Amino acid sequence: MKVLEFEMDRDEVLDLTPHVQRFVEESGEREGAVLVFSVGSTGAVTTLEYEPGLKKDLPRIMDRIAPYSDHYDHHLTWNDDNGSSHVKAAIIGPSVVVPFRDGRLLLGTWQQIVLINFDTRRRKRKVVLQVL
Amino acid sequence: MKVLEFEMDRDEVLDLTPHVQRFVEESGEREGAVLVFSVGSTGAVTTLEYEPGLKKDLPRIMDRIAPYSDHYDHHLTWNDDNGSSHVKAAIIGPSVVVPFRDGRLLLGTWQQIVLINFDTRRRKRKVVLQVL
Amino acid sequence: MKVLEFEMDRDEVLDLTPHVQRFVEESGEREGAVLVFSVGSTGAVTTLEYEPGLKKDLPRIMDRIAPYSDHYDHHLTWNDDNGSSHVKAAIIGPSVVVPFRDGRLLLGTWQQIVLINFDTRRRKRKVVLQVL
Repeated sequence: MKVLEFEMDRDEVLDLTPHVQRFVEESGEREGAVLVFSVGSTGAVTTLEYEPGLKKDLPRIMDRIAPYSDHYDHHLTWNDDNGSSHVKAAIIGPSVVVPFRDGRLLLGTWQQIVLINFDTRRRKRKVVLQVL
Repeated sequence: MKVLEFEMDRDEVLDLTPHVQRFVEESGEREGAVLVFSVGSTGAVTTLEYEPGLKKDLPRIMDRIAPYSDHYDHHLTWNDDNGSSHVKAAIIGPSVVVPFRDGRLLLGTWQQIVLINFDTRRRKRKVVLQVL
Repeated sequence: MKVLEFEMDRDEVLDLTPHVQRFVEESGEREGAVLVFSVGSTGAVTTLEYEPGLKKDLPRIMDRIAPYSDHYDHHLTWNDDNGSSHVKAAIIGPSVVVPFRDGRLLLGTWQQIVLINFDTRRRKRKVVLQVL
């Protein structure tokens, strides 16, 4: 098990693939699956082609689904401003499991494992990696 | 493996965390990951800050994505009214995998494992817990 | 581990359940969980009641979330037309983990494991199955 930490901006999309690939190599396992889990309820993990266009497209579409400026009951609980962040992260989800063989992640050529910080401010995000 | 059952209202969000934590403790395992899987196609599992505001916000946003009152071809198949429920559950998904260490789930302080009943009526929902 | 390949149309929803059930049987394991992972960033895996109505409803709702005709920065990167496909696949996600017991998948009666091809053209899609 390994815990990574990243300083991330609002709506930043980060490519975790090299970190996960290295972790698999360090594990010494040849075949298995690796769990990638985002700690905290305003971050999410999925796969995406990691290129500058989609790094903007995904957060933009998510903000259309759950606009920052809407009313959220969450704001009444904590006098906070990140109700949209929580909803977006819950929809995409915190975990992804990726198979590997011969020590290599079985991703598509244009498919990367990404962490997204949906919080409304810059913050430190933790990710847990674990071979299952 | 353990199967839990809950009576849940329409759009109810239930905190599974204490159940999953207890299951991990009962397993006797110190380090690993636990699968939380919702049985049935109108329930979903994700993580969320479990507080009264977000318990309303998430179902409201999901109903904007797939409004109850829309036309669904599903209704033509079964003369049913829960096409929106199926679509919402498929988007969020039925499974989440959460790592643990020293017998404790590695969740954020404000991050809970939640089960959502998207069906249009009160019903019994089953969840499978399993240490991987 | 097993890798399956399917030729799929745009917005096609495919029932993977018989394939996954057979794979579990071939594994000889009685109890465990199976990972179903979509290789490539325009495909997604989730569970759904597999019937003709929902096969139309889910892609229709996803296209309302991320309409094909919108502007996507992704198109500027590759002069491509499938920005919406990438966003839809990232939202639903590439992986699902399903428990089994006595050699049977613990799905609901109306719950199937489905692969969706969100790409804008017919293409070959790969899925990895793995007992965890």
